[in-house]
Amino acid sequence: MPQTPLFDRIALIGIGLIGSSLARVLRREGLAGHVVACARRAETLEAARRLGLADDYTDDPAGAVAGADLVVLGTPLGAYGALAETIAPHLAPGAIVTDVGSVKVAAIEAIAPHMPKGVHFVPGHPVAGTERSGPEAGFDSLFDGRWCILTPPPGTDADAVERVAEMWRRAGMTIEIMEATHHDRVLAITSHLPHLIAYTIVGTVADLEQATQREVVKYAASGFRDFTRIAASDPVMWRDIFLANREPVLEMLGRFSEDLARLQRAVRWGEGDVLADLFTRTREIRRGVIEAKQA
Amino acid sequence: MPQTPLFDRIALIGIGLIGSSLARVLRREGLAGHVVACARRAETLEAARRLGLADDYTDDPAGAVAGADLVVLGTPLGAYGALAETIAPHLAPGAIVTDVGSVKVAAIEAIAPHMPKGVHFVPGHPVAGTERSGPEAGFDSLFDGRWCILTPPPGTDADAVERVAEMWRRAGMTIEIMEATHHDRVLAITSHLPHLIAYTIVGTVADLEQATQREVVKYAASGFRDFTRIAASDPVMWRDIFLANREPVLEMLGRFSEDLARLQRAVRWGEGDVLADLFTRTREIRRGVIEAKQA
Repeated sequence: MPQTPLFDRIALIGIGLIGSSLARVLRREGLAGHVVACARRAETLEAARRLGLADDYTDDPAGAVAGADLVVLGTPLGAYGALAETIAPHLAPGAIVTDVGSVKVAAIEAIAPHMPKGVHFVPGHPVAGTERSGPEAGFDSLFDGRWCILTPPPGTDADAVERVAEMWRRAGMTIEIMEATHHDRVLAITSHLPHLIAYTIVGTVADLEQATQREVVKYAASGFRDFTRIAASDPVMWRDIFLANREPVLEMLGRFSEDLARLQRAVRWGEGDVLADLFTRTREIRRGVIEAKQA
Repeated sequence: MPQTPLFDRIALIGIGLIGSSLARVLRREGLAGHVVACARRAETLEAARRLGLADDYTDDPAGAVAGADLVVLGTPLGAYGALAETIAPHLAPGAIVTDVGSVKVAAIEAIAPHMPKGVHFVPGHPVAGTERSGPEAGFDSLFDGRWCILTPPPGTDADAVERVAEMWRRAGMTIEIMEATHHDRVLAITSHLPHLIAYTIVGTVADLEQATQREVVKYAASGFRDFTRIAASDPVMWRDIFLANREPVLEMLGRFSEDLARLQRAVRWGEGDVLADLFTRTREIRRGVIEAKQA
């Protein structure tokens, strides 16, 4: 049964891992009459074209959003403000603008002030990803069984929220609505701090003398490996996340550092019971993750 | 072509993830005329029996090693000293004793002094594992393509080293010989510190209020998930590793903490270039891990 597309014309601004995966979903599900892919770099556009991800390709955001009833911002967070300012005069009345950024308070602060009256901004965060980046890294099952968090400020048009939600549902996601500040605190511990720690330990290894470094790589399967995977994520995207979510990240990092100092002390003083107690408690959390089918 | 077994009688003391995986390899490869599985706990022995991992089952280490030409210690490190003392009088002349512990200096200190003249102790560390533990968690391909590090002290019988090496080769491993102190330093950063950090951050989450904790579990796929997996490893085994490898772990932890403090400062002061530089350098290490086929 052929379905009416959810949107007539969708502009994807940024066509990396998330944008290109969404493009694949749009095609698979027939969600858009027409899709425009917009990227700043020629190589990215060329790759998107080669993969046949959209109907049109452009490096001009203003042209991309003209006539679109949905605009999806999928660039690093640091580009949001200038981008919102650039596209604002070209947005069609009634258009919906959404984003996929990992920090929501900063996204709203960067985008909302530029939005013309009658344009609906629905901040969003599909919580899915891999350590790979770029249009070639995308795949249409990336969002399957994952959560999509929407953080519409009070007064956001309910119909606009529902249309964005429906798009992500068709991508296989389950929708959660929450406040932007709460989102940023939860993601600080569940995603941002793990990345910061992984980047740190891999950096610690990168500073070891060459001979030891080679050995660490050789025996990476004993634990280090998982950290290198996380620390292979896109550098610019992650720089922007930490800059944009500074306070929640610093707060969680403070808690972590205190806990690490306590464990360091337990190792130094041979307090085996402190170690074994903690190591037993952490198994419970793992069980929770497995039960929540997020393992 | 039927092969002569490498050993007539092998005693596996401890039949957890490593011991039970080795038992499966011994059977698959026909490496032993007779295998005795020894465990302290009745449930473990019962599980081993149900799985048909050995020819004999006992909770008496002294009886298990009697007449064995190879004894493999696969218990947590903290049990080594008492165990070595218990089995020493019952070891056959010319027998080889090896272990699978993750810390080698402490293993040698605990075991070597008890070894009778004419018994050969070959300290070993098959660098392989999963976060699961117990006899049911084992599987015969666990060691495939991984490294086995042997750290024989100067003067160790070369033939004994070679026979232990051959057993692990038949399990699919590649052998490295290195000094125990060097092993402990490399493993401190590649394995022990990653585990300590993973345990810490999962513990930090376990201390959050229940509501936030539930959400962290829900969105675990965004990074936290990998840490919960690592932090699900066996508590007693890991307690013993940290107690046994204290100095190298504290040294690497010191480096890590300094690096984390520097990153914390970069986040606080919005030093985006410091962050992006590090995040770019860490990608190189990931490339190394992939090229070394340890990803």
